[in-house]
Amino acid sequence: MGTQMENARKGIVTAEVHEAALYENMDSAALAQLVACGRAAIPANKAHRSLKPRAVGRTLKTKINVNLGTSRDFLDIPGEMKKVHEAIRLGADAIMDLSSWGDTAAFRRELIAHSPAMIGTVPAYDAPVRLKKPLKDITAREWIDTVRVHAMDGVDFQTIHCGITRDRMARIQNRERLTGIVSRGGSLIFAWMAMTGEENPFYEHFDEILDICAEHEVTLSLGDACRPGCIEDSSDAAQIEELILLADLTRRSHQRGVQVIIEGPGHMALDEIEANMKLQQRLCADVPFYVLGPLVTDSAPGYDHITAAIGGTVAAAAGAAFLCYVTPAEHLRLPTLEDMKEGIIASKIAAHAADIAKGIPGAREHDRKMSEARKNLDWETMFSLAIDGEKPRRMREESPPEHEDSCSMCGSMCAVRNINTILAGGEVHVHN
Amino acid sequence: MGTQMENARKGIVTAEVHEAALYENMDSAALAQLVACGRAAIPANKAHRSLKPRAVGRTLKTKINVNLGTSRDFLDIPGEMKKVHEAIRLGADAIMDLSSWGDTAAFRRELIAHSPAMIGTVPAYDAPVRLKKPLKDITAREWIDTVRVHAMDGVDFQTIHCGITRDRMARIQNRERLTGIVSRGGSLIFAWMAMTGEENPFYEHFDEILDICAEHEVTLSLGDACRPGCIEDSSDAAQIEELILLADLTRRSHQRGVQVIIEGPGHMALDEIEANMKLQQRLCADVPFYVLGPLVTDSAPGYDHITAAIGGTVAAAAGAAFLCYVTPAEHLRLPTLEDMKEGIIASKIAAHAADIAKGIPGAREHDRKMSEARKNLDWETMFSLAIDGEKPRRMREESPPEHEDSCSMCGSMCAVRNINTILAGGEVHVHN
Repeated sequence: MGTQMENARKGIVTAEVHEAALYENMDSAALAQLVACGRAAIPANKAHRSLKPRAVGRTLKTKINVNLGTSRDFLDIPGEMKKVHEAIRLGADAIMDLSSWGDTAAFRRELIAHSPAMIGTVPAYDAPVRLKKPLKDITAREWIDTVRVHAMDGVDFQTIHCGITRDRMARIQNRERLTGIVSRGGSLIFAWMAMTGEENPFYEHFDEILDICAEHEVTLSLGDACRPGCIEDSSDAAQIEELILLADLTRRSHQRGVQVIIEGPGHMALDEIEANMKLQQRLCADVPFYVLGPLVTDSAPGYDHITAAIGGTVAAAAGAAFLCYVTPAEHLRLPTLEDMKEGIIASKIAAHAADIAKGIPGAREHDRKMSEARKNLDWETMFSLAIDGEKPRRMREESPPEHEDSCSMCGSMCAVRNINTILAGGEVHVHN
Repeated sequence: MGTQMENARKGIVTAEVHEAALYENMDSAALAQLVACGRAAIPANKAHRSLKPRAVGRTLKTKINVNLGTSRDFLDIPGEMKKVHEAIRLGADAIMDLSSWGDTAAFRRELIAHSPAMIGTVPAYDAPVRLKKPLKDITAREWIDTVRVHAMDGVDFQTIHCGITRDRMARIQNRERLTGIVSRGGSLIFAWMAMTGEENPFYEHFDEILDICAEHEVTLSLGDACRPGCIEDSSDAAQIEELILLADLTRRSHQRGVQVIIEGPGHMALDEIEANMKLQQRLCADVPFYVLGPLVTDSAPGYDHITAAIGGTVAAAAGAAFLCYVTPAEHLRLPTLEDMKEGIIASKIAAHAADIAKGIPGAREHDRKMSEARKNLDWETMFSLAIDGEKPRRMREESPPEHEDSCSMCGSMCAVRNINTILAGGEVHVHN
């Protein structure tokens, strides 16, 4: 009963590898090889019984993650579970539970009991809430115990902010970057280190974390505390130094048979994205890269699902395996259900567009079917193949067309309709 | 009194070049050089008195165009003029009047009288409406006369579908492509050619069109009838053959001193965009490329402002000079005022993100100011610098934060607030 990685190295095709390979439409032995060398990860905690296992990796279908969780403003567990079901219905591959208020354990356990999607958490958020203590009074032991509690609850992957160490604090303290640390978990650990004078507990006790992960089959999502928070800070020394440290920790994890995902930017100009993906692949043994964005401009609050979809498509086409969704509420407020929906759809667009560009089997074929339906003015098939079928149906119904088959945009000048008519030997009439 | 191009070749800095250079924050003699060789175009009809001239070109700020116009469903001229004012307020650099119903001349003249933005039209749409005749009864002379009428009215640029000729009809007739022709104007000309057996009038009488353009200072926007209408059809023989013909017509236009813009895709997988931009630049003497999208997937009706923003950012970063906006209503219905707004903002995001990537002066600096405001939790400055300040203000007001300075997303865990506190020597408290 080794870890997924250990089994894969022995050539064993586990049930998780088998199911994940089916979903990818690929040979399960080939997927096991990717898992063996860490180029794919299958986050699948032994205690997560409701899980439908999925693999994350550069050469596989791009996956998307949705952030949820209880908070000061949304403490209602049944209400939050409604969001969970909606996220799953819309196609979330993973859900990160970022709960920061109330009985976080109760919500986490409820979530794991019911979610077929992978579940991720961030122990750094939960520790102060779970322990009900001032941040600076939390002990190193308690940070690590939080990782253990989440592992025992069945969390499939945990974001561990182990890349910001004492000897790397100076770049932030000397204000080398415009926006310092914008990672929530990273900022909590940084503040704790500054207030206590101690080393980063997740770095110092990394071997113990690996033992926990190996025992419960938790995939490590190595967090980027120095994720760039603005266009100005991207690809800077703080970010790249941290990536190098995460590469070292990846090696240690793989030696222990623990699967790894690495988290990445952030805000980043479009022209830097490809280089960043390549650098991560080379430094970090091509382990799955999990990006938040990248947001290609700082200047579009209210529309960061769009800035993230732009960067996310380019990132995923260049090899990012996993996209964390970004909603229109980013930088502004806790997302509403509607914000969540818009964020999921924008992420799914990015993932699918990248899969077309990467040549993932089935992606182009899907669009071909959609365009055949479009050519045939077959609206029902279009709605059924659409990434979101509800909105286009509503929009069309709100503006009934002049001709049943076309739409109100072009009316009798509809190019599709007119070319179909001409090719069928008919005559085109423009109403005027 | 030569054309803009002729004057630029003589080293004359016209008032239009002067004003456009000021807007770009560049030397006017340098802009005149770009105009002289066609690498920048300044669409500025002599009769468009209200115009604030702007230059379009690969090395300049990326410009955006908004489509508007009267139609069967929106015949109300004052109502449509409201849209015009809103488009200009939101930052449209150009407006294309695609009117297809009623007294199109009255609306066009009203628009030109009041618009500081460049005005473009598509004579192929207007001819059947203006002449109130069946499509097949329109004569070659009448198509050309429509170009003349628009030129006399003060239109700054006209889309001329001159690239689909009789000897190129076979690829469409033989159904070599999945979606044939999806260009509305292209499909009308194709249908007319098929029904009448005549050659494309815009191609056959191209010299006469050049005379009209030279006389009135109209920039030719060479239309792409074979714009790919789906991922399956992009970069195919029909598209590239047409681009080559447009390159030949570009040379003829430049010889006559007429400015040219070339129109481009369309639907296109992300990984083909850069190659298409490079090909256009090399084939067509680096004249401004005006793209509709590209939409990076066919499968997101209702969200094509997002699929177009993804492709548009990549296209503009690779050299496209001019983005035609795409609204969420694309493929579904005539856009409402709200659809128009969303389309404009998505295009502005794409243009700005591309300008950052291209290194256009001022673009990164804008984001730096935004992020300084973000670091300082200075919300008023953020709203004033945002591409759209209204939506983020409304979103924040709807979810009042726990702390005046942060937002409801992270509350007391706000990374920006906590890092500011620690760097100022304070203590971070997480409410729990």
